[in-house]
Amino acid sequence: MISSDSNAQVKELVKLQKNARERRKKQLFISEGIKLTKEAALYGKLEKIYVAESFYEKAEETVKQWIEEYPYEEVADTVFSGISETVTPQGILGLVKMPSYHLEEILNDERKSIILLDDLRDPGNLGTIMRTAEGAGMSGVVMSRGSVDLFNPKVVRSTMGAIFRVPFYYADDLAEVIEQTKAKGIPVYGTMMQGSVVYDEPDYCTGAGIVIGNEANGLSQEVIGHLTGAVRIPMEGNLESLNAAVSAAILMYEITRQKRKKLS
Amino acid sequence: MISSDSNAQVKELVKLQKNARERRKKQLFISEGIKLTKEAALYGKLEKIYVAESFYEKAEETVKQWIEEYPYEEVADTVFSGISETVTPQGILGLVKMPSYHLEEILNDERKSIILLDDLRDPGNLGTIMRTAEGAGMSGVVMSRGSVDLFNPKVVRSTMGAIFRVPFYYADDLAEVIEQTKAKGIPVYGTMMQGSVVYDEPDYCTGAGIVIGNEANGLSQEVIGHLTGAVRIPMEGNLESLNAAVSAAILMYEITRQKRKKLS
Repeated sequence: MISSDSNAQVKELVKLQKNARERRKKQLFISEGIKLTKEAALYGKLEKIYVAESFYEKAEETVKQWIEEYPYEEVADTVFSGISETVTPQGILGLVKMPSYHLEEILNDERKSIILLDDLRDPGNLGTIMRTAEGAGMSGVVMSRGSVDLFNPKVVRSTMGAIFRVPFYYADDLAEVIEQTKAKGIPVYGTMMQGSVVYDEPDYCTGAGIVIGNEANGLSQEVIGHLTGAVRIPMEGNLESLNAAVSAAILMYEITRQKRKKLS
Repeated sequence: MISSDSNAQVKELVKLQKNARERRKKQLFISEGIKLTKEAALYGKLEKIYVAESFYEKAEETVKQWIEEYPYEEVADTVFSGISETVTPQGILGLVKMPSYHLEEILNDERKSIILLDDLRDPGNLGTIMRTAEGAGMSGVVMSRGSVDLFNPKVVRSTMGAIFRVPFYYADDLAEVIEQTKAKGIPVYGTMMQGSVVYDEPDYCTGAGIVIGNEANGLSQEVIGHLTGAVRIPMEGNLESLNAAVSAAILMYEITRQKRKKLS
């Protein structure tokens, strides 16, 4: 059993929780809780399980058996809570290999529905967008390098498992990906307050890329220059904007609504 | 200047930040940051301003003049950060009177679009739903007593000012409000995975109530028994559900989409 904070594995886990660069270098991240850790296992990404002493002691026999199918370490409760990023740790976490995709997999997907994120910064928003993208059946999510790290513990948690199922790609140059998307015959729309058409006017049935901007500053000028068009979500009242994950959801579900209507 | 944590005003502000019962008893809450505090003033709800010493010293003349239009207190920086619920306090907060509405104002609003929340628990979700409700032009938001407190600091922040503009009501008995809504000729739909119709099939143009359930457990049996019908948002993939604020947004914007199409 690991009983010291200065254990090398503990130090590495803490680094992986706190540091996006470390995660990227090692291509590893942490799944917290049994549900997400089981999903990591299901998708063949689980490397090792770390389980708090008291959790292990109280675990049902089936859970124990499951844990013992993988390399695992028991960890003293106080040490475990130092690794966990949740307020009330469940007592189990996984060391998980990052999934990874090629941009081409997303661009060539037959659903032709892509979400692009231009410096999205809020972890909860990114997690919620991944989750909604799975529900709406998007081809994948492309993020600019300035966006929040997808393997940030808060993001991981709020994806509700979509992190293992929705293809994603970090683009060094988002404008270039917009051009590549258009070259595949897929129009790319940006959501903006000043958009010239209402979001439900374009025909998304033959494919659509939707760009969501930064929470504070919206879309960058560079990205705007490469769009097929800008769409706006009508707003009453005195709001400056909608929440970014809400805007993304309204657009994603408009795409699926149009496709469903066309089929029926 | 207030320089001690044990100052009576400071103690009361801390109570108002932490304790929903105290807020309800006093009918007061806290606005953090200059933007929200200015909104509180705009809607005639601002009672007093508390400003951190360093903020006040560095403030522009116009900001200082604005502050001095209201009763205000300077607070030592260390004391101020003990009051603030944000990680990086801006240095200004307001003591604010709660807005309050009668259920009839919501039920009789000509837009006839009501969001009902059945034990919604997450502060971020409630704030985002209020914000989206303003954008989508809803008549108001009705919450069951078991829902998170609207004046919780996290909720207040995430409403982005909608807290001053969207009518709301806490219902002792949500099922009874559903019956009252239906008695006004407004059908009430609940969003459920097992809903018998897809969410865009009902005609919402003559009015609609939409019930969103608890994040973990969905709609309560009691509420389900009083619905006009249950609608579902189609989901691909392996998700158990969408985020509650996302589901609410998809429904609210479907209502406005239908109304817009009917007008055009």
